[in-house]
Amino acid sequence: MDSARLIELGQQLRVDSVRAAAAAGSGHPTSSMSAADLVAVLFARHLRYDFERPDHPGNDRFVLSKGHASPLLYAAYKAAGAIDDEELLTYRTLGSRLEGHPTPRRLPWVETATGSLGQGLPVGVGIALAGKRLDRSGYRVWVLCGDSELAEGSVWEAAEHAAYEELDNLTVIVDVNRLGQRGPTRHGHDLHAYARRFQAFGWHTVEVDGHDVEAVDRAYGEAASTAGQSTAILARTLKGKGVRDVQDREGLHGKPLPDADAAIAELGGVRDLRVEVRRPSAARIMPAVRSGPLRLPRWESGEEVATRDAYGRALAALGTARDDVVALDGEVGDSTRAEFFAKEHPDRFFETYIAEQQLVASAVGLAVRGRVPFASSFAAFLTRAHDFVRMAAVSGAGVNVVGSHAGVAIGEDGPSQMGVEDLAMFRAVHGSTVLYPCDAHQTAALVAAMADLDGIRYLRTSRGKTPVLYGPDEEFPVGGSKVLRSSPDDRLTVVAAGVTVHEALKAADALAADGIPVRVIDLYSVKPVDRETLRTAAEQTGCLLTVEDHHPEGGLGDAVVEAFLDGRPTPRLVRLAVRDMPGSATPAEQVHAAGIDAESVAAAVQLLVESAVLR
Amino acid sequence: MDSARLIELGQQLRVDSVRAAAAAGSGHPTSSMSAADLVAVLFARHLRYDFERPDHPGNDRFVLSKGHASPLLYAAYKAAGAIDDEELLTYRTLGSRLEGHPTPRRLPWVETATGSLGQGLPVGVGIALAGKRLDRSGYRVWVLCGDSELAEGSVWEAAEHAAYEELDNLTVIVDVNRLGQRGPTRHGHDLHAYARRFQAFGWHTVEVDGHDVEAVDRAYGEAASTAGQSTAILARTLKGKGVRDVQDREGLHGKPLPDADAAIAELGGVRDLRVEVRRPSAARIMPAVRSGPLRLPRWESGEEVATRDAYGRALAALGTARDDVVALDGEVGDSTRAEFFAKEHPDRFFETYIAEQQLVASAVGLAVRGRVPFASSFAAFLTRAHDFVRMAAVSGAGVNVVGSHAGVAIGEDGPSQMGVEDLAMFRAVHGSTVLYPCDAHQTAALVAAMADLDGIRYLRTSRGKTPVLYGPDEEFPVGGSKVLRSSPDDRLTVVAAGVTVHEALKAADALAADGIPVRVIDLYSVKPVDRETLRTAAEQTGCLLTVEDHHPEGGLGDAVVEAFLDGRPTPRLVRLAVRDMPGSATPAEQVHAAGIDAESVAAAVQLLVESAVLR
Repeated sequence: MDSARLIELGQQLRVDSVRAAAAAGSGHPTSSMSAADLVAVLFARHLRYDFERPDHPGNDRFVLSKGHASPLLYAAYKAAGAIDDEELLTYRTLGSRLEGHPTPRRLPWVETATGSLGQGLPVGVGIALAGKRLDRSGYRVWVLCGDSELAEGSVWEAAEHAAYEELDNLTVIVDVNRLGQRGPTRHGHDLHAYARRFQAFGWHTVEVDGHDVEAVDRAYGEAASTAGQSTAILARTLKGKGVRDVQDREGLHGKPLPDADAAIAELGGVRDLRVEVRRPSAARIMPAVRSGPLRLPRWESGEEVATRDAYGRALAALGTARDDVVALDGEVGDSTRAEFFAKEHPDRFFETYIAEQQLVASAVGLAVRGRVPFASSFAAFLTRAHDFVRMAAVSGAGVNVVGSHAGVAIGEDGPSQMGVEDLAMFRAVHGSTVLYPCDAHQTAALVAAMADLDGIRYLRTSRGKTPVLYGPDEEFPVGGSKVLRSSPDDRLTVVAAGVTVHEALKAADALAADGIPVRVIDLYSVKPVDRETLRTAAEQTGCLLTVEDHHPEGGLGDAVVEAFLDGRPTPRLVRLAVRDMPGSATPAEQVHAAGIDAESVAAAVQLLVESAVLR
Repeated sequence: MDSARLIELGQQLRVDSVRAAAAAGSGHPTSSMSAADLVAVLFARHLRYDFERPDHPGNDRFVLSKGHASPLLYAAYKAAGAIDDEELLTYRTLGSRLEGHPTPRRLPWVETATGSLGQGLPVGVGIALAGKRLDRSGYRVWVLCGDSELAEGSVWEAAEHAAYEELDNLTVIVDVNRLGQRGPTRHGHDLHAYARRFQAFGWHTVEVDGHDVEAVDRAYGEAASTAGQSTAILARTLKGKGVRDVQDREGLHGKPLPDADAAIAELGGVRDLRVEVRRPSAARIMPAVRSGPLRLPRWESGEEVATRDAYGRALAALGTARDDVVALDGEVGDSTRAEFFAKEHPDRFFETYIAEQQLVASAVGLAVRGRVPFASSFAAFLTRAHDFVRMAAVSGAGVNVVGSHAGVAIGEDGPSQMGVEDLAMFRAVHGSTVLYPCDAHQTAALVAAMADLDGIRYLRTSRGKTPVLYGPDEEFPVGGSKVLRSSPDDRLTVVAAGVTVHEALKAADALAADGIPVRVIDLYSVKPVDRETLRTAAEQTGCLLTVEDHHPEGGLGDAVVEAFLDGRPTPRLVRLAVRDMPGSATPAEQVHAAGIDAESVAAAVQLLVESAVLR
């Protein structure tokens, strides 16, 4: 496509962005108009993509990090023949595939959901890692960012990581239109301010007029021909480019143009140019997943094993059985035991250093490319990646996240290292699965099971050792539970998970010796929860006492309530959880101080029985 | 203190770090030893601090971002005479003030809790902002970081912000010991790799041998005399410095030395040097808070007002009444309405651009310096700052956080912009308060009330307009609720908050017309929850139907259950919440599709009544 037509194509993308937003009555046309020429040149001359085969292994990957510029993306899809004009005008309406911010749940050409700024580049790094280290196919990853979002720290985690991994298959194009949502950015049109930062992190940079199509073309060519470095293209643009009344003006973010018809006329009217996006070169299909027999580790009954150790060993075994399993670490692999996987499968191990946002973003990127990622860190530090987990759920990405060092039971390190909000965080994520094993065999079985689930799957592991309770062939279906103590005379039911299962068992045995039989349920599947077993226990014992190494909000206790939300009679409920701010102390002192050890459970049961609260 | 004694002081800090960790049987002596000379020089020659008056307005502020090096901090406190040797050896034991990671809850000289890496510098930026823009006292902020933690994006949000605000009262000292937890860092001892990054962001940098006390002294002097720029001191150090068997060796992170006695001997034995930390110069006490009459805005009954608008206006009024109130924005102030405050009180408004971690960190830093911060962004994007909120709670910091654009009711923008996990996130934070108003007067009253609470206070606001329900003089105590519909014959109770209050009222009125009276509770205080009113409703109506614009986990429904966790009879429970992943649609379509609109509430009640689930 020659320059004249490229310029026309850019105008068409502007016109169609204006039309889509006008039809919707909302959206971000001005943010689309600034980047229209950047996208026109990319689609017409550089992107290699088969819109009929979005899963083609040789396809380049385009990520619109500034997801609010979705009108531009959809206008480009139209120009490429992927959607028609009628669909374009369904933008932002109920049931339309063309959402306010693009998601791969609805559109096969979208790699990852965007709209929370600063996430496109980190996920792009994950995709580029897959391309470079695993697929070894020649595809390139193109990420279009806004300038405002470069204030997000996640962008610099990504910049650091891309440089370290020498991802020369990755290009970020920054649409420096100088205007954020509420006013000018910190650096305005100072392209070099951004270039300096990327260079310092080890990137190749190109500064360019983002409305000069030939200059943009050369910049893309330079990016593609730069070896050993990622390239950042800093493009000077004007927000609302091409329409005098809105161009480069404040106060017009996220609004349809005041006079769409006049704007379309000023832009030269509606066009119907088609752009032939280059097909990818032949590429091998991702090698069929080698799937051998899974030989999970085994332990002796009663042996003391930390569930984090079981996680590490099970993951390594899973990696041996399946080629598509990869592991990611946030520089704590010796603690989470991800290092067990690293030692056996170094080619499929990704160290992201202390950067939990990039940890999860890399996992999402690897999932986009068909891998089954396990990303682990301390449960407490996964809060750092909450927004990335949230957006991964919006994407529908299949990602396993594992949080170690759960709860006060870690002991001396104190509250900064204790995951006591993680169950609440992961339960509230759409479509998530939340698992919390109490012994080694249970952990291993759940690690194997979670690999085949959809969406976000969270596994919570513990630092300290606990005795092996279950046999190596016991089954632990997701959504199930285990009744560990039961009699017809049970006065109530103690529901526990993880470390508190062992406390509950000790308490139950002591209480039984005192003539107070209680049921004990190991609720290892926190979400989905085993409604049937809980309902039976409620009917038969009348009261559920939950005990959890987590804050009282959003954890095990709330999970139990899910079994009773259809208006059926609800049992009496009592909840033991971590209510005070811990300091330093031994693990035993911590669980005692928090009131979640065997002694506390037994005392609570005694009190309930004696006070005649129970029938 | 001359060089020879400085060197001795450094050795003493190492010895005491080794002793504290040996006594505890855990801790991070090697990470303390690398930075011992850096701290010795700081305390002996540069820090200005009165340990007897930690609230002295002229005190410098020292933040140990690498909180795991707490033995070094406590050793320095001992050298400064703030604690004695006996207390030093209580390190990490139950009840000791000397926790594994330092917190201001226990020690008055600690500014902010650390232990989640990458948070010290961002909070230091907040403190330095207070010093520069509000206190205008001459104190300096010194932050000691590790090298590993520079991988956290939050550090670069802070670097960007410090440069932009020209915080020349801020110095970061990076202890480049080249070893992270599990192995070498990305950049090893390449000081210039870090310097280049800080320079690119606009900092002055100094590279120095971190064990050369005179060179370190000169670096600190250079930092203090640099105007208009923050300074980063990149100090080359050795982990475990001074003990041959551990020095610069991998695999020894977070472990007491294998032979503490031999190490102490090698370091020259136990010493008892005292360091006279320089007193701060005279400084005015922070001006007494001017507190005038609070004139909250008023609206007409039935007027349509978005609660975000009410927030902005109430906050501006609060700022007029009180000089200690400050507001912070994450570049969405036009949406959250924080801009109303900015217009009236520009001197107390802090723009942190799109960097939610820095947004909350700045708020924590301003709280450290006695201010009452209100930090606002979209509820969805506050997930980005989850770890900072968590650590603020560990600090016991008093911070107001306000999340706008809650729920699916925002409409067309789609799931990336919808806060549907925020209640779960903030409820699970220790000691938090969670408020969710449904009308303008309620919002204004809660904004005023939250300013005087302790800990993390979260206010959830809505994008769309809702009718004013309450009068301007109505009181809304935190922990209360409002019963909006009630009769002796109520068949059940609908519990709602925010936008769903209006849906519940519409449903109740339609049901009443059909001869089905239901109670309606506006549960604006989600945490703490009004147990009494909920229990009365349970006793009188037998069934609680919650309806919320939030995921079913961790929100309003779970808050209601809190009223029944002491073993008392629990009412029947039914929960309406956002269960599917939304796309784009109008606000009305969204709340209908989610099954939380008036029609859905009425249908649910009808179903319950007809199916004879209810008595």
